[in-house]
Amino acid sequence: MAGKKRIVVIGGSAAGPKAAAKARRLDEGAEIILLQKGADLSMASCGYPYYVGGTFDDRNQLLCTPAGVVRNPAFYLNAKAIDARTNTEALGLDRKSHTISYRNLLTGEEGSLPYDKLILATGATPKMPPIPGIDLEGITTLQSMKDADFLRKVRDEGRIKKAVVVGGGLIGMETCEALHLAGIEVTVVEMLPQILTFLDWDMARLVENHVRAKGANVIVGNGVAEFLGQDGKLSGIKLRNGTELECELAVVAIGVSPNVELARQAGLAMGATGGIEVDEYMRTSDKDVYAIGDCVEIRQRQTGKKVLAPFGDLANLEGRVAGENAILGDTVTFPGTIQTGICKVFDFAAGSTGLSESVARQNGFPEAVSVVNASTDKPGFMKGKLVVTKLVADRKTGKILGAQVVGPGDVARQVAQWAMAILGGMAVEDLVCADLPYAPPFSLAIDHCIATAHLMQNKLKGRLKGISAMDVKRKLDAGEKPFLLDARGPDEYEAMRLGVGETLIPLGAVRKRLGELPQDKGAEIICYCKISLRGYEAALAIEANGWTNVKVMEGGIMAWPYPREK
Amino acid sequence: MAGKKRIVVIGGSAAGPKAAAKARRLDEGAEIILLQKGADLSMASCGYPYYVGGTFDDRNQLLCTPAGVVRNPAFYLNAKAIDARTNTEALGLDRKSHTISYRNLLTGEEGSLPYDKLILATGATPKMPPIPGIDLEGITTLQSMKDADFLRKVRDEGRIKKAVVVGGGLIGMETCEALHLAGIEVTVVEMLPQILTFLDWDMARLVENHVRAKGANVIVGNGVAEFLGQDGKLSGIKLRNGTELECELAVVAIGVSPNVELARQAGLAMGATGGIEVDEYMRTSDKDVYAIGDCVEIRQRQTGKKVLAPFGDLANLEGRVAGENAILGDTVTFPGTIQTGICKVFDFAAGSTGLSESVARQNGFPEAVSVVNASTDKPGFMKGKLVVTKLVADRKTGKILGAQVVGPGDVARQVAQWAMAILGGMAVEDLVCADLPYAPPFSLAIDHCIATAHLMQNKLKGRLKGISAMDVKRKLDAGEKPFLLDARGPDEYEAMRLGVGETLIPLGAVRKRLGELPQDKGAEIICYCKISLRGYEAALAIEANGWTNVKVMEGGIMAWPYPREK
Repeated sequence: MAGKKRIVVIGGSAAGPKAAAKARRLDEGAEIILLQKGADLSMASCGYPYYVGGTFDDRNQLLCTPAGVVRNPAFYLNAKAIDARTNTEALGLDRKSHTISYRNLLTGEEGSLPYDKLILATGATPKMPPIPGIDLEGITTLQSMKDADFLRKVRDEGRIKKAVVVGGGLIGMETCEALHLAGIEVTVVEMLPQILTFLDWDMARLVENHVRAKGANVIVGNGVAEFLGQDGKLSGIKLRNGTELECELAVVAIGVSPNVELARQAGLAMGATGGIEVDEYMRTSDKDVYAIGDCVEIRQRQTGKKVLAPFGDLANLEGRVAGENAILGDTVTFPGTIQTGICKVFDFAAGSTGLSESVARQNGFPEAVSVVNASTDKPGFMKGKLVVTKLVADRKTGKILGAQVVGPGDVARQVAQWAMAILGGMAVEDLVCADLPYAPPFSLAIDHCIATAHLMQNKLKGRLKGISAMDVKRKLDAGEKPFLLDARGPDEYEAMRLGVGETLIPLGAVRKRLGELPQDKGAEIICYCKISLRGYEAALAIEANGWTNVKVMEGGIMAWPYPREK
Repeated sequence: MAGKKRIVVIGGSAAGPKAAAKARRLDEGAEIILLQKGADLSMASCGYPYYVGGTFDDRNQLLCTPAGVVRNPAFYLNAKAIDARTNTEALGLDRKSHTISYRNLLTGEEGSLPYDKLILATGATPKMPPIPGIDLEGITTLQSMKDADFLRKVRDEGRIKKAVVVGGGLIGMETCEALHLAGIEVTVVEMLPQILTFLDWDMARLVENHVRAKGANVIVGNGVAEFLGQDGKLSGIKLRNGTELECELAVVAIGVSPNVELARQAGLAMGATGGIEVDEYMRTSDKDVYAIGDCVEIRQRQTGKKVLAPFGDLANLEGRVAGENAILGDTVTFPGTIQTGICKVFDFAAGSTGLSESVARQNGFPEAVSVVNASTDKPGFMKGKLVVTKLVADRKTGKILGAQVVGPGDVARQVAQWAMAILGGMAVEDLVCADLPYAPPFSLAIDHCIATAHLMQNKLKGRLKGISAMDVKRKLDAGEKPFLLDARGPDEYEAMRLGVGETLIPLGAVRKRLGELPQDKGAEIICYCKISLRGYEAALAIEANGWTNVKVMEGGIMAWPYPREK
């Protein structure tokens, strides 16, 4: 045990309390003081959308321990012997004298605290677009307990009819769902060509289609130019293309900026991303000052580059590391992130881990290759639901680089599996015979993840000549006329089809109807079915009969992100 | 592409059809013949309990492709150009002449087929106990489509009131649930001291308690001595201890024996476990004969020992390997199993991957150490449900050796994560900062799996001095009087408690009430709470105040497998 020392933690949301608690567990004798600018401590801020949306009604659930005790200063004092001071803003950091000055925002009282080790967990602030009307009443974010209370009141009062969510990221889409569940007509406005930029365009589009199908509006590739108001109150927005939308509420969710002023003024090193620079011990450029959570930049484990990764799970893990190092000296390290994330969007979930194909190619993996797989998560007789995975691997080594998963099925398990595979440095060959928990209530006999590895293996071995839905669409838009073969049955074709000039030849008839294929054996033939398993078998049979340019449209109709004929 | 060759596959359940299909994909020109003794092909046999239990009503769903096409010989011929012959029994294998003789069980026609490569997927047969009355009407297994049809008829007719399931393994427990859902009073009789022997006793007991709470009966440590009958029909069973139970139906599920007669008669090498011996290419002792699925023994990847692992997922993966090797020569390998499994038992799931503590200790990991963690799978405000994990790791290397997970929560994801960690050769230190998909609808901010790794890390570092519930019970039963400290709040204590002589000192009061602890600083103190997080913090605070023999009961009340006072 170290001698009695004083640890001061700035910030009381996720990372700070975790660091303080870990420090306490390692040193019962240390004096641990936590300064929190806001009124609340340890808010489960990732839960705000679910409170707003009505998943639960008691706001205290966001502030409580699992046993139902509110995490207030009394709780911290009694249960953890931590002196947590709310409504207390850190004003300045004097590294030379090892002191932090503060002000109590309620009483105005100021003071200063010496520290042996300081842990900065100052968080991040939502970005606000610098456009006209941004100060109108009715524009908010969903970042604080106060925001959550306000939006929950909006729900409970039921007066607001139309809302806009500015930004189609993770929090934007969660907020979209919450407001929709509150009975409000919602439009998401995203400046970029897609929502959820942790996904590739085609995967994001599948989610976007689902959101529209649930009755919310999504506008992509168009930013907000101006917030329109009447009597100081929001009445609508004007988009960059001139369109005006009525709304009485706007929630801005275009990302967050790390809160680094305290650190910057104290002369601590800043990273290129704008976050506080820390080493693997979560230590800043001052050996007695750690920084954790949304205010820091951390290492992307696969590329080695620094990134901002303002996620609650990482904040906790970073806090645990800093709390231990502040007590025991720099003994444990934080390895960084593979940028694993997930969000619920109505009946879909959308998740990602590791690198997308394009990010991989630009960051040290020029040979990155992707494959798309669509299947149910469980057998049909167990009411399996669709999951679509885009897997990225390195062509040379087969190493798993990233995976994106969307759909109504068990996305969380799939993403978790891929995250573990990446963390374990696993390659496609390590996964094709993976031994995962199988029973019909939980997965297919060949788990979706293993089947995806099979596809990638077939692609890397040159057996599966895949083409993405996006590339097929580009060909069609460019006026190319590949022979498109839908290998499903007639009933299926009548119920649902692309209608892009395809020919229906059920797999069971392909070998007998080769005469209907292009006579030119070099002609481009693109096969698919609902998920492109039958499409793959059709392609192999056709290729074996002499055609030389046969491809499979990956993921089949289930991964087709464009409108269908039916 | 290989030249035209003939592949004969014996067995049409899971492994055989997969091997045949893979062979076809790799060689459109090969002649592929599949002989199936039964009437059906590619039955989703793992789905039988869910058909019997009424999860779905159309038996054809067990025999169909995802697109709804029955996998009959016509399907195999048309879609896969595979000559699948049902009701056709393989009689003998002449390896010298490379021929297999067969008989059509409907017509009596006999014949023989030459092969270039033979793939044996002869499956397994349920074991039947050699006890009096075993031939009575009303005794069945749940292994074939016929069995499933019979038990479904039992459900639909609603005449049978009482049933016994002999054997508390995976299929036994699934059958128990199915019959219970069919409105039948069910008793599971297990000869061993516990159900689900892939779990350790304490974990299995948690499941057993749940089964009883759902209204089914479980008798452990007592086998069936005799089936009792009247007029040739089952009327009850007599247990080894003399107890008689009335029942009109008995389902025997005491395991399966590999079907190896064909292989044995042909002189192929047999393994010590009773399964056909195969190498990593799934090749038998004859280079032209492969064997896959329930009839073979395979390598346990962690111990290197051969095991029987009759699971549908492995059968498929083995089939894929054999199918490729039969066509391309021996190019791909099957690495073996880590014995990952899962089953649904009413509202619980129970899963396991890798080695239990005792198996690990007996098989090359003398330093295996375990820890138990209990928590919800998601935050309370998202209606998180309990998961209890017993993690096993190697003390020296920290390598993950195994994990068992039970509870009503998302067990499948947890087991899948651990399976991936084992497959990736990961250690505890690789998991304490794992980057997994977090959002409140899917997990805790610190995923249960990561928190479990934290506990193991704390244990390996000597910070968490854990004691299992079983060891605590043993001490109490032996008359020892450790000071038991329940660190929860008074309300919680009133609602639920062990009642084994504990003292309630809420965590928040521990530091003020040290005077209530034993005066002897060497006295044994055992702390716990609902899940033993507060118990852990209490233990650290007490230890820091000079007590030297302070332990934490792992998993807390949630992992206590014995009756509670309330």
